[in-house]
Amino acid sequence: MTKPFALSCGDPAGIGPEIICKSWLQRKATGLKPFFVAGNFEDFKGPDGKGLCGVPIVKISEPAEAVDQFDKALPVFHVHDGEPTIPGEPTLDGAQCALHALEIACGLARSGDAGAVITAPVSKSQLYNVGFRYPGQTEFVSERCGIARENAVMMLAGPSLRVIPMTSHIALKDVPAQLTKALIIARAKAAHKAMIRNFGIAKPRIAIAGLNPHAGENGNLGDEENLVMQPAIDELVAQGLDVTGPFPADTMFHEEARSRYDVALCPYHDQALIPLKTLHFFDGVNMTLGLPIIRTSPDHGTAFGIAGQGIADPRSMIAAIQMAAMAADNREKYDH
Amino acid sequence: MTKPFALSCGDPAGIGPEIICKSWLQRKATGLKPFFVAGNFEDFKGPDGKGLCGVPIVKISEPAEAVDQFDKALPVFHVHDGEPTIPGEPTLDGAQCALHALEIACGLARSGDAGAVITAPVSKSQLYNVGFRYPGQTEFVSERCGIARENAVMMLAGPSLRVIPMTSHIALKDVPAQLTKALIIARAKAAHKAMIRNFGIAKPRIAIAGLNPHAGENGNLGDEENLVMQPAIDELVAQGLDVTGPFPADTMFHEEARSRYDVALCPYHDQALIPLKTLHFFDGVNMTLGLPIIRTSPDHGTAFGIAGQGIADPRSMIAAIQMAAMAADNREKYDH
Repeated sequence: MTKPFALSCGDPAGIGPEIICKSWLQRKATGLKPFFVAGNFEDFKGPDGKGLCGVPIVKISEPAEAVDQFDKALPVFHVHDGEPTIPGEPTLDGAQCALHALEIACGLARSGDAGAVITAPVSKSQLYNVGFRYPGQTEFVSERCGIARENAVMMLAGPSLRVIPMTSHIALKDVPAQLTKALIIARAKAAHKAMIRNFGIAKPRIAIAGLNPHAGENGNLGDEENLVMQPAIDELVAQGLDVTGPFPADTMFHEEARSRYDVALCPYHDQALIPLKTLHFFDGVNMTLGLPIIRTSPDHGTAFGIAGQGIADPRSMIAAIQMAAMAADNREKYDH
Repeated sequence: MTKPFALSCGDPAGIGPEIICKSWLQRKATGLKPFFVAGNFEDFKGPDGKGLCGVPIVKISEPAEAVDQFDKALPVFHVHDGEPTIPGEPTLDGAQCALHALEIACGLARSGDAGAVITAPVSKSQLYNVGFRYPGQTEFVSERCGIARENAVMMLAGPSLRVIPMTSHIALKDVPAQLTKALIIARAKAAHKAMIRNFGIAKPRIAIAGLNPHAGENGNLGDEENLVMQPAIDELVAQGLDVTGPFPADTMFHEEARSRYDVALCPYHDQALIPLKTLHFFDGVNMTLGLPIIRTSPDHGTAFGIAGQGIADPRSMIAAIQMAAMAADNREKYDH
């Protein structure tokens, strides 16, 4: 049976606690399986002490208790002592709480006590002030899993599109040099395995976008397609993977085109994230592939500016929990 | 009163003639004003001689005749003698016909006999075989208008989005060097003027996408935003234009974000065309800004592979004719 999922609270001055409570409120309508939140119990009491967003809360001392409690109350695994954080007012203590929650949620997933980790948004600049030394949560989680960060693969997914940026947070001018044959092969193999293991797709279809406009137009608009991308694709196909491309990126993402593949690999950040966020701004999910554990997160930030107003949209968080559940179900079938 | 519009037939082996006939069939439902097609009369007779797609045709000897004829038949301005072209089988004679049609349609718009030029798709590789020496139809049209090609600006537009790629058909690695302050200022000014003149928007709102992911994240992911883009935007704002940015491109194109501007300027091809074609693959229009004449075209190619099967989708062509009509109406108000 799937273990309860661990949700890290994220920065408690952000919208993390609110969207977690709203997800719990919608647990029946959206079919969510038991989860608990790792955080400071005080942050979930709400301004009037009756529970944030009116959600009843219960302190648990081990993850397994969440299963029985989940129906009646939001189980809180208390990981950080401190005053309650005021929404919209980030503090060092809140950043410390976010880090504790992340660390413990990962540990519980690694030990098998939690079935997945879903991470609420953190503020990187706040975390840097309390000693965090990673580009983001993804690299932190992968290191805690003993996976080199270059092998942890970020996938963004919505109901109608899955994309993987093969390079991510680097300047555009550095992309062509970073896009190597080895990188393309590694990302495609990770995508192939992840589609099978997490999504139950027996023969995953992988489409690769060209780096240049019109995928280079036979070398007239750039030669990376001919010199780097096609050789990588040829090698993947020779190994039996269903990999096609390089395709002109601009015609890959309309509805009909999307039906032709299970995941699109793009050379750089905006090529992947523009279509994803154009189509799925409110229900996009970030999933880290290549890890022994399941890790998803909503595809948005802390939104300090609207925290505490009760207007945060929980759809992306709910979708992140649902995607983790799908992955857990499929892994159970695939791994056993 | 607006003069009839000139449609160039495009490569007659492509879907141009078919989508022109289908547009005529839908002239009442879609509110199209009188147009005529410049091409080879033979290409519109259809395989059985009863008119392509069953459309009645009439040969005209000057554009003005189109106004009276349009209601009953598709007016054809015969510009090229030759055997009828077989759909799907491009020939040199067909390419010559496409070029004649383009040349004459432009000339009629320049002389004021036609109210706009709408160009059906051509095959550049075919045109190169008959002496065409331009990167595309846009550069040909701009030169015939006495406008330097670097001042003719490609805009792609659908019902919910208008985008301008500030650089277009160049390799991605060449984009950062091409994106100069002067280019940004020139493109924004052309966009500003075109929004007023063609779309009747009194105070156009122009949003500019950053070159790098997250618009460079304060210089951490590339410095072009700080060194090149922000100074250009500052200068435009100082001149009284409503220009904002540089924004992270990935969050510029969801529905709510699109409502905040009238046109988005993007540093490179895919950044602009990915969202446009994701949202408006079947009804996107290409409009050339900065010309004395109105020129639009459907946002797709010749589609030789499906020509002659009766399955070509005329929506983009109809949208191109409608957009030209909107521009003609607004120019009449603005210019007089």
